[in-house]
Amino acid sequence: MLEMDEIQKRLLREVADLHKVPEGAYNIRANGESAGRVSTENIEIEPRESGDGLTIRIKPNTKNESVHIPVVMTKSGIKELVYNDFYVGENADVTIVAGCGIDNCGSQDSEHDGIHRFFIGKGANIRYVEKHYGSGSGSGKRILNPGTEVYMEADSSMEMEMVQIKGVDDTNRTTKAELAENAKLVIRERLMTHGDQNALSFYDVQLNGEGSSADLVSRSVARDNSYQKFDATLTGNAACSGHTECDAIIMDKGTILAVPALEANDVDAALVHEAAIGKIAGDQIIKLMTLGLTEAEAEEQIINGFLK
Amino acid sequence: MLEMDEIQKRLLREVADLHKVPEGAYNIRANGESAGRVSTENIEIEPRESGDGLTIRIKPNTKNESVHIPVVMTKSGIKELVYNDFYVGENADVTIVAGCGIDNCGSQDSEHDGIHRFFIGKGANIRYVEKHYGSGSGSGKRILNPGTEVYMEADSSMEMEMVQIKGVDDTNRTTKAELAENAKLVIRERLMTHGDQNALSFYDVQLNGEGSSADLVSRSVARDNSYQKFDATLTGNAACSGHTECDAIIMDKGTILAVPALEANDVDAALVHEAAIGKIAGDQIIKLMTLGLTEAEAEEQIINGFLK
Repeated sequence: MLEMDEIQKRLLREVADLHKVPEGAYNIRANGESAGRVSTENIEIEPRESGDGLTIRIKPNTKNESVHIPVVMTKSGIKELVYNDFYVGENADVTIVAGCGIDNCGSQDSEHDGIHRFFIGKGANIRYVEKHYGSGSGSGKRILNPGTEVYMEADSSMEMEMVQIKGVDDTNRTTKAELAENAKLVIRERLMTHGDQNALSFYDVQLNGEGSSADLVSRSVARDNSYQKFDATLTGNAACSGHTECDAIIMDKGTILAVPALEANDVDAALVHEAAIGKIAGDQIIKLMTLGLTEAEAEEQIINGFLK
Repeated sequence: MLEMDEIQKRLLREVADLHKVPEGAYNIRANGESAGRVSTENIEIEPRESGDGLTIRIKPNTKNESVHIPVVMTKSGIKELVYNDFYVGENADVTIVAGCGIDNCGSQDSEHDGIHRFFIGKGANIRYVEKHYGSGSGSGKRILNPGTEVYMEADSSMEMEMVQIKGVDDTNRTTKAELAENAKLVIRERLMTHGDQNALSFYDVQLNGEGSSADLVSRSVARDNSYQKFDATLTGNAACSGHTECDAIIMDKGTILAVPALEANDVDAALVHEAAIGKIAGDQIIKLMTLGLTEAEAEEQIINGFLK
């Protein structure tokens, strides 16, 4: 196994479900340095010349392979900005697992800002998983600002799973995508904030090609004094279809602002949006309480189901 | 009847359904001057001291009465800004009909900007109808910028019908409302743009009181090269419920941007939004064509039903 301590290993499990060195290509970044890197015949991972990130090249027709590039930070006071560029060859079909875990036991803020750019070739299919997690008892904040840019060529597809369940004090998430003919983008975001956390989530999806489609569903829970803003714009510039949905639960003194935008610039663009913000329905809690759960347990169970 | 020409009378019919002098209180403004004004025992209409609009005072407990304050403009090149303030007494129950029609046969733009403020007393019920209409073959634009502010005291209700179906080249509509305990606001907007028209419609509804509710539904059609922006914010600052819906049909090269926002600042605020933008479903048109209608007639009928 890699040269990592127990906290780092725990973070790796949280953000990338990794219990050992992953199969296939990977790069594990720990406290600003590479703790291990492996390329395969079809997937090449190289540091950028500027030293501030990775270039990942996936050969055309690569099938059923994966790339893991998790990041863990356990020192207080680190602030880093990295750029990872993915070049996905035509008709490749791969899974990419990113994600960042920060454990901060110190008094200084720790911040990881990762800019991921995806250049997805014709007919390629990508499954992308990005989990963010924070832990540690220090007063220093755990800050994660992911920027994601997706450029999809004709007939490509991408499924993105973006998860931030716990422990991230401040996040400003920006996701932009441009879709060519028949490209298909599916995004599932799950977000929970607590304490005094802030989470901003910004999406800008441009449906440029005929037959392109996007389906963006965000589920979020704002607890305690936390604040969330969900800002998603779908723009239809061709015969295309787009759907966004924002379902949010507020608890305690949590507040949520949802600002979805639909822009139809083509008569054959069909765009739909739904949003709902509210607290857990009282009768749902009562139902579970009659089964023997306390009120807090009932709430927990409902939220776990909602964010599943 | 009033001293009005045939065009002015036609405009009056379009914007206020008036075929003769209205019953009850009224003020008819034609080309920047009052063409007739009547107060009643319970409803007093007076010019503001500054001369740029009206003050309308409705006595408490006034029931089943109405106020008409339509505006018609038939001269090219007029630009006016008027302020009308409505003070509605407790438990009054009245209908207010506003609206503006512009006939512009000249080459200069004609513009009416009307700022309406409503101070609605406890338990009062208001039905408000505002229709905007343009006609005339001149190259000068017909511009209408209505600003509406609504301040609702406890247990009051207001139903607003905002209609702009035809002939308005440029409009920038701003509607703001603040609701106290148990106040209830219902807004129905119907909008159609054609040619090179622009329509911006901005709503800001603040649900401040416990038990307050707002229901805002906008239906719109953008034809030819027209552009529409629908921007509606519902803010829940108490135990309240809010719903906004934007259904839009695009035709030809029409474009629509819908930016609804929900802001929940209270755990007991329940806010819901829906939006859908698209063209008329092909099977709806085919169905009507099998009944003997041409494609254009089928479209017309579907749109008329949609905007009804």
